Amino acid sequence: MEQRLHRIQVMTRGRGLVDVTDQLCRWLGSQGIATGLLTIWCRHTSASLLVQENASPDVQADLEAFLSRLVPDGGNGRYRHEDEGPDDMPAHIRAALTQTQLSIPVEGAQPVLGTWQGVYLYEHRTSPHRRELVLHLLGEASQR
Amino acid sequence: MEQRLHRIQVMTRGRGLVDVTDQLCRWLGSQGIATGLLTIWCRHTSASLLVQENASPDVQADLEAFLSRLVPDGGNGRYRHEDEGPDDMPAHIRAALTQTQLSIPVEGAQPVLGTWQGVYLYEHRTSPHRRELVLHLLGEASQR
Amino acid sequence: MEQRLHRIQVMTRGRGLVDVTDQLCRWLGSQGIATGLLTIWCRHTSASLLVQENASPDVQADLEAFLSRLVPDGGNGRYRHEDEGPDDMPAHIRAALTQTQLSIPVEGAQPVLGTWQGVYLYEHRTSPHRRELVLHLLGEASQR
Repeated sequence: MEQRLHRIQVMTRGRGLVDVTDQLCRWLGSQGIATGLLTIWCRHTSASLLVQENASPDVQADLEAFLSRLVPDGGNGRYRHEDEGPDDMPAHIRAALTQTQLSIPVEGAQPVLGTWQGVYLYEHRTSPHRRELVLHLLGEASQR
Repeated sequence: MEQRLHRIQVMTRGRGLVDVTDQLCRWLGSQGIATGLLTIWCRHTSASLLVQENASPDVQADLEAFLSRLVPDGGNGRYRHEDEGPDDMPAHIRAALTQTQLSIPVEGAQPVLGTWQGVYLYEHRTSPHRRELVLHLLGEASQR
Repeated sequence: MEQRLHRIQVMTRGRGLVDVTDQLCRWLGSQGIATGLLTIWCRHTSASLLVQENASPDVQADLEAFLSRLVPDGGNGRYRHEDEGPDDMPAHIRAALTQTQLSIPVEGAQPVLGTWQGVYLYEHRTSPHRRELVLHLLGEASQR
């Protein structure tokens, strides 16, 4: 059994989903590990991880519209914590409702994602940010 | 350290929870691994995983009622993405708010679930579906 | 590759977040494993895990206020399951919307948390409880 630890940077364009599936698969494919477990850790509390449909852009628009209604922006005393602006506290709440970590089984040096599954970094702040993900891979080279 | 990779099919009866705890435990018990980590991956974006109380059926009814109010069905232009019907987009949102993956420590060849914890596949579509879970087990035969 | 399994008890003071980061780091630091994966499992369905900002107490107050509005307490027939009081069913729903498990990569015998990330046990019941977390650590002593 072997393990790998790696960090990747993701540039976001403000609030919304950034597809990181290809980036994950490329790194995974170069590690010489056929079977194992890939863990992704998001090192932030105002951005998070999400598995979501990768086909229709409408899904992302609907999801964003839902979360914007569910967790409205502040600015008028709605939240105590508005140090960094009206999108600060909503970002923390959105992160709490989604994922900070995902662990995906690996088979044939690829994550076992379903046909319609993509892995996304969800930026919850309105301005662009540089985000860091830690990737941990555990497994072995030989096929099962 | 050894690992195992396995797939199971779960038939759902439409929207609601399907208890998969026994199915997981049976597979786990036959793998000859006493201590380790079991990861469950749901290969869908309109069904998800959930750990929930396994005693009272009222808990499931209340949870379903809560989610139906929180994420109402579409059909009247509420969502852009209604290709597959009014329950299509709500299913993606419900999946985003629950889990696609769970990793449970294993001790004595059993998951370390609490007394009242069951592992459920949550079907979010109104019609029955065949769903696939990938199970990954990492660990060793000897007791600690 | 080695693994460790350990249980810790956390006393809560009723509804709210309890920071368990230091407790996790102390145990991790004593295990002689430099690189690996730490999994935390919460053995309850009315308490859960959360990664959240560790700096401003306002963030915790805002998050709690948000969840109290989103999942109102019962007592007036709002929920079928009110056996243990008006905070019983809301606790199960809050647990479903947050995490029962977290897996954090380990580097230098520490979890790779971001600067502002803390790991919290979220008590969802109004009265104090003793909660149990199972810690599973997989990794190796040598630096990568």
